[in-house]
Amino acid sequence: MSQQTSVSAFLISRIQELGVQHVFGIPGDYVLPFFDELIKEGSPVKHIGTCNELNAAYLADGYSRVKGFGVAAVTYGPGAFNAVNAVAGAYDAHVPLLLISGAPQTARYRQGNKLLLHHAVGSDLDATIRVFTPITAAAARIDAVEEAIPTVDWLLRVALDQKRPVYLEIPFDMQKAQIQVPDRLNYQPPCSDEQALHRVVEQVARVVNSAGKVGVLVGVFIDREGLQQVVEDMLSATKLPFATTFDQKAGYLEYLPNCLGFYQGGICAQAVRDATEGADILLTLGMPRTEFNLGFLTHDFKEDRMIELGYDAVNLQGEVVHGVYLRQLLPLLAQKITPRAEELVEDTFPFTYTKHRAGPEDRPLTVDFMYPELAHFVQEGDIVTGNTGGYINLSRMRMKKGNTTAGPTNWASLGSVFPISVGMAFAAPERRIVCLEGDGSFQMTGMELGTVLRHNLNFLLIILNNAGYTAERAIHPERDDSYNDIQVWNYHLLPEALGGRPGSNGIDVLTESQFTEALAAYEFGKGLHVVNARLDKMDIPSFFREMSDPLRH
Amino acid sequence: MSQQTSVSAFLISRIQELGVQHVFGIPGDYVLPFFDELIKEGSPVKHIGTCNELNAAYLADGYSRVKGFGVAAVTYGPGAFNAVNAVAGAYDAHVPLLLISGAPQTARYRQGNKLLLHHAVGSDLDATIRVFTPITAAAARIDAVEEAIPTVDWLLRVALDQKRPVYLEIPFDMQKAQIQVPDRLNYQPPCSDEQALHRVVEQVARVVNSAGKVGVLVGVFIDREGLQQVVEDMLSATKLPFATTFDQKAGYLEYLPNCLGFYQGGICAQAVRDATEGADILLTLGMPRTEFNLGFLTHDFKEDRMIELGYDAVNLQGEVVHGVYLRQLLPLLAQKITPRAEELVEDTFPFTYTKHRAGPEDRPLTVDFMYPELAHFVQEGDIVTGNTGGYINLSRMRMKKGNTTAGPTNWASLGSVFPISVGMAFAAPERRIVCLEGDGSFQMTGMELGTVLRHNLNFLLIILNNAGYTAERAIHPERDDSYNDIQVWNYHLLPEALGGRPGSNGIDVLTESQFTEALAAYEFGKGLHVVNARLDKMDIPSFFREMSDPLRH
Repeated sequence: MSQQTSVSAFLISRIQELGVQHVFGIPGDYVLPFFDELIKEGSPVKHIGTCNELNAAYLADGYSRVKGFGVAAVTYGPGAFNAVNAVAGAYDAHVPLLLISGAPQTARYRQGNKLLLHHAVGSDLDATIRVFTPITAAAARIDAVEEAIPTVDWLLRVALDQKRPVYLEIPFDMQKAQIQVPDRLNYQPPCSDEQALHRVVEQVARVVNSAGKVGVLVGVFIDREGLQQVVEDMLSATKLPFATTFDQKAGYLEYLPNCLGFYQGGICAQAVRDATEGADILLTLGMPRTEFNLGFLTHDFKEDRMIELGYDAVNLQGEVVHGVYLRQLLPLLAQKITPRAEELVEDTFPFTYTKHRAGPEDRPLTVDFMYPELAHFVQEGDIVTGNTGGYINLSRMRMKKGNTTAGPTNWASLGSVFPISVGMAFAAPERRIVCLEGDGSFQMTGMELGTVLRHNLNFLLIILNNAGYTAERAIHPERDDSYNDIQVWNYHLLPEALGGRPGSNGIDVLTESQFTEALAAYEFGKGLHVVNARLDKMDIPSFFREMSDPLRH
Repeated sequence: MSQQTSVSAFLISRIQELGVQHVFGIPGDYVLPFFDELIKEGSPVKHIGTCNELNAAYLADGYSRVKGFGVAAVTYGPGAFNAVNAVAGAYDAHVPLLLISGAPQTARYRQGNKLLLHHAVGSDLDATIRVFTPITAAAARIDAVEEAIPTVDWLLRVALDQKRPVYLEIPFDMQKAQIQVPDRLNYQPPCSDEQALHRVVEQVARVVNSAGKVGVLVGVFIDREGLQQVVEDMLSATKLPFATTFDQKAGYLEYLPNCLGFYQGGICAQAVRDATEGADILLTLGMPRTEFNLGFLTHDFKEDRMIELGYDAVNLQGEVVHGVYLRQLLPLLAQKITPRAEELVEDTFPFTYTKHRAGPEDRPLTVDFMYPELAHFVQEGDIVTGNTGGYINLSRMRMKKGNTTAGPTNWASLGSVFPISVGMAFAAPERRIVCLEGDGSFQMTGMELGTVLRHNLNFLLIILNNAGYTAERAIHPERDDSYNDIQVWNYHLLPEALGGRPGSNGIDVLTESQFTEALAAYEFGKGLHVVNARLDKMDIPSFFREMSDPLRH
């Protein structure tokens, strides 16, 4: 006779099979049997509590960006609804994750609309599924015990196949229901059409190898498919000039001498545009044509010179071939590209570690001082993240080998990147996190600092304290914009208020030399450091002003 | 020729017409023309910035609970999605409010799914409307300038008619589009069927007046319809024994000598049950049969003895009459109920100002000490609010004349009541706010303290610091429940970290005498005071343990 298990224990074993060791979330009465199973002695997966469900889903997102999958668990109704924006963000950023929600007993569903249960939208017990359907690859409830295994396995396959979030609702009684232990999921990613794959490889190689000037743009799916090493080897060997892009800046490639810089349509350096848009062939690797990747649609693509290797389709100078997956295509293609002679490529990054380092003086801190200093400070292997102003400036900062970057992607939600970075810290506890947050963005989700303290994560947080939504001030530079003013917090005092040791973890930085000292202090430290970097409210680099123009609509 | 105005200016004039003077929200590029209009010199409505959009919607909810309508404004996509849970909560709690979201240019909608715009769910520009449809009374976008006035007026009428939130999406260009200034909205609430109304009044009066024992339960729609004075006069004159209920505890009635206490099905005092469920006629005033009102369905209603005056329908001992509105019915009925002889009613409130006040000692602070002290501390006219543990205990605390209460209602979302209370403070700046928050609840949305400081609101916040979700511990009293542990913050240090004056605004309270002193200090003060009330993690009153039993499912 086969062994019995509960649906909750089965789900936890599936999660573990996908390499997930942490489930982020908040308990609530409808989901307690699952949480009870999660914290049982010997559970292979650990529960990590967060301040709210939005942040739980963000942490799962960040975890997935490093480990390939993430999981958050919440209670029915308010719990799930708090997570909506993070789930929609994961959808847009192609991050696979599973949101598990508890739900009322299955018997309650049969009683129909006579009941007004707590945590339910009136008497509509399907409202949660309806809300999650437009923002997930799939949303489903386990309505009967025999549906448990097929529903869970289907959702996990959809999430992994489509690189998008899925929503699973488990009624209270179903969480405890007994099932027979099934075989392993043994997930295998979808396979390309063999014939089409080989035809595309040959054709792309032929076009690229016979073209005069070739430019390459590296996009988000390289990271999502774990193809970083393949791309690094290919670009290192072929010496093709390339640029990184907005949605997932491939910072770990920027140390290569053939890195042109950062591409973003009409709002990046002319030299980068000339060598990409102006090339005989522009080869994009896993880069969707999002508005932010294309510089708010200021790009100038010559459609007959485009070769776009998408997630599951290829655009060959106008001919689209479906069913060819990047993960199978790129390793084959990398072997077929003929190396080129090394070209001298100008360093177009405004903020770069290749330039002479400024000596600190006691002048007020500015963005133009801060980022070159950071470019020197960041070490190989660091995870470097930022939101809004932080990320926009980081996107123009030259990274080092082994750096992983994360930003707000095309979804561009304020408040997203700090908790995403905390999730990355759980996934890679041995790495340093360097996170640059705008103050307005940080105020949205910043209380999750308490979780960084609770778990003693290695985390350098630099708050760009410019008293408001400066990225938005750039859009209306001459106008009254009091709606962009925010309450000025004493960010350096937050760690102690959130349970840190007195006087530790936070530093108030007003001048250049204080900033340099704050970075130096962290180089020898571990744990959380919060830098309250006080900047003038209109301290905006010139490239940033230019990129804000198109947002005036 | 009639005068021209912009759609944004028109919308602001409509909002003002409804008595709204504050719009809560966060700007973003898709909604800037509306915000520009909002902050123009002479604008009749003021913008109040919040930390995030969830809190903006919660503030609008609280504002509406006092003033009858509330408005929040956000940007497209992430902005709107951050507000989902608060909007769903307003839906469930019958709070009318308007959520205004910016959106891409109308031309973008005609370009269809070729574009991947920032803040959009992939290429699906309708995802936002689809997400808000299940959690609002109506959700609509202004697709053309001639739709602006009818769409706005329809949404406002729906919100006010149904006492529920509505969602309005305004594309960027529509915010600036010019229209002719229309007539005023002149909103009039829906009218009852005259014949049915008078028949019901006569029938209810006859049944009530001829019954032996009559019990009354006061529900949420009395507050939502502004019928507080009508009910107070009626209960004061007729001396009918009554109890208050969970969704909107009518605390301002509890000073009356015929107040039985607090009703909640099988988990309230037996004397209250006997005098309500056990009466010959149980008359409920605007009380929906929600799970929390009914003590998790542990109620024992005799259906043939029930007279339920609902929002727009009446249940006469089983016969349901639709189209009869509480707001028209109750004032007529109040004139027809025959006064009764005063009965001696026992004070069943565990926490009450009618009992002798304990002298403070230097023992560790406990719930049993704290709430009777609070019952004395609260003054007539105070707004008294609480979430989870705070509200559950408050529900058993006898209030005073003129008190307004707010709690999590049947939606019961952690993190909701603190920002709702901040919205109430904007609506009633002359009143004191006394807010009791569980620590787990507070961590979800507590950064909005910065807004209390920024606007110098009169706000006493007592954090029940018991190191976790103690309301949930009560459900599993004997078990390992490490998932209910949270990071212990130094709540008394938060005001300074969020921009308050050094050393002010916060007090750490460990003992009974420290608690009494903290309250006394506030009696002479204004502005924000945060009390970090340290309690044992299992300090739960006995009634609270009893009410947790049914939540074990």
